[in-house]
Amino acid sequence: VNLIILTDSDQTTENHYRVTDRRAAHIRTILKAGPGDTVRVGLLNGPIGKGEIVSVTDGSVDLVCQFDQEPPTIWPEVDLFCAISRPKTMRKILVTAAMMGVRRLMLVRANRTDKSYLASPLLTPEGWTPFLIEGLAQGGLTRLPGVTVHPLFRPFVEDNLVQFFGGKKDTLKLISDPTAVATLTQAWSTCEHNHILAAVGPEGGWVPFEVGLLEQQGFVGFSLGPWTLRVETAVVAVLAQIQLAARILPKGASSAGE
Amino acid sequence: VNLIILTDSDQTTENHYRVTDRRAAHIRTILKAGPGDTVRVGLLNGPIGKGEIVSVTDGSVDLVCQFDQEPPTIWPEVDLFCAISRPKTMRKILVTAAMMGVRRLMLVRANRTDKSYLASPLLTPEGWTPFLIEGLAQGGLTRLPGVTVHPLFRPFVEDNLVQFFGGKKDTLKLISDPTAVATLTQAWSTCEHNHILAAVGPEGGWVPFEVGLLEQQGFVGFSLGPWTLRVETAVVAVLAQIQLAARILPKGASSAGE
Repeated sequence: VNLIILTDSDQTTENHYRVTDRRAAHIRTILKAGPGDTVRVGLLNGPIGKGEIVSVTDGSVDLVCQFDQEPPTIWPEVDLFCAISRPKTMRKILVTAAMMGVRRLMLVRANRTDKSYLASPLLTPEGWTPFLIEGLAQGGLTRLPGVTVHPLFRPFVEDNLVQFFGGKKDTLKLISDPTAVATLTQAWSTCEHNHILAAVGPEGGWVPFEVGLLEQQGFVGFSLGPWTLRVETAVVAVLAQIQLAARILPKGASSAGE
Repeated sequence: VNLIILTDSDQTTENHYRVTDRRAAHIRTILKAGPGDTVRVGLLNGPIGKGEIVSVTDGSVDLVCQFDQEPPTIWPEVDLFCAISRPKTMRKILVTAAMMGVRRLMLVRANRTDKSYLASPLLTPEGWTPFLIEGLAQGGLTRLPGVTVHPLFRPFVEDNLVQFFGGKKDTLKLISDPTAVATLTQAWSTCEHNHILAAVGPEGGWVPFEVGLLEQQGFVGFSLGPWTLRVETAVVAVLAQIQLAARILPKGASSAGE
């Protein structure tokens, strides 16, 4: 953990905060910090800074905080569109998405999503928020990704995605596809873009109908490499490659044509 | 799992193989395959192909195999040099290294490696091999990474690394370092290279002495992105970025100077 994430509800008076849950335990037992020590803190959806510990009890830690820094800027903006997976995988996707600065996480029922996964409490704000906060704390970020759940694939792709991104020609839409020949580089140059929408399928992959529908909506398939990755590993690899590509490649088609 | 990994000791007669462990359970309960069905198989350190199931009992599955394909070529060759981490993290590193085609995995005691981790059975061939095979089966690869364990950091870096790579000027040596300013692209151009040695530190990072010693040996620091990743996530991100960089960038300094 690189940051203790605080929320408004932890605030006691102006710059005083009290934490009582896993964060208190983390400060005491992992960081082994006590009164007078300083820990890095971040305000959820806000700035980061330092918290001086003023008192520690068995169950709580009181901090006086100075928030004097903006969190790191994440560029490009990435929205991630993932198939709903089994809970063990979903937890990892939630942590990774927050840790690696995803703006919006869209969880969609795919053909290979087992029906039972839809009932998981992870697909509710109470279920997903702790894992997102764990990811923010690890990644040193504070902006909570927006999460939406879509139990119907086709209306999601045909209607919701069009609503979110349809009018915007500046979204590069990517599907990670182990069978694709193109690399991210080749997919990159297919449109001028200021932000990215990346789709990662379920274990076993998207079915052809799903890939077809996504391609109709302008998604471009690309291969991460010569291996077949687990879903949670593919999410990390996609976000890591996007980060590198954004630093070395122009923003797509029109730059190349200038 | 994308491949059932077979070894010579599974062979009963010429092209007949019998599996009796987790692989048999996987075929029966996850793949739900029975006599007449075909599964993808790979011979450890050998070719891949198809296995037709000829019989299934409670504890074993018999297959008739045709190995007619080479496994995917992994390029560039990557050797990974990781700090020894807690067992939970080590298991993930082992799986990832095999899944993503690492050639050699060097596990080194870092300053921040807790002494107790050195006693882990994971640091023995009996301990690490099952996790490597799990990774190969997932990644669709067959070449078992070579693993070595080095309890002393300084002799490892000054002697072993020089023995392995010292004479070869064609090794790009990278350290993933969240505080570095350079991207992988910038580090890439520092030497002409045919293969890569990448170092990933422990939770909390390398200490300055370690970074200094690695820099003396020609390692170049680079940042994966604006976040701070967990060790096991950093390993995936490093390997994913190397794969992308290798496809879009020339092989370093001399190409740029031509």
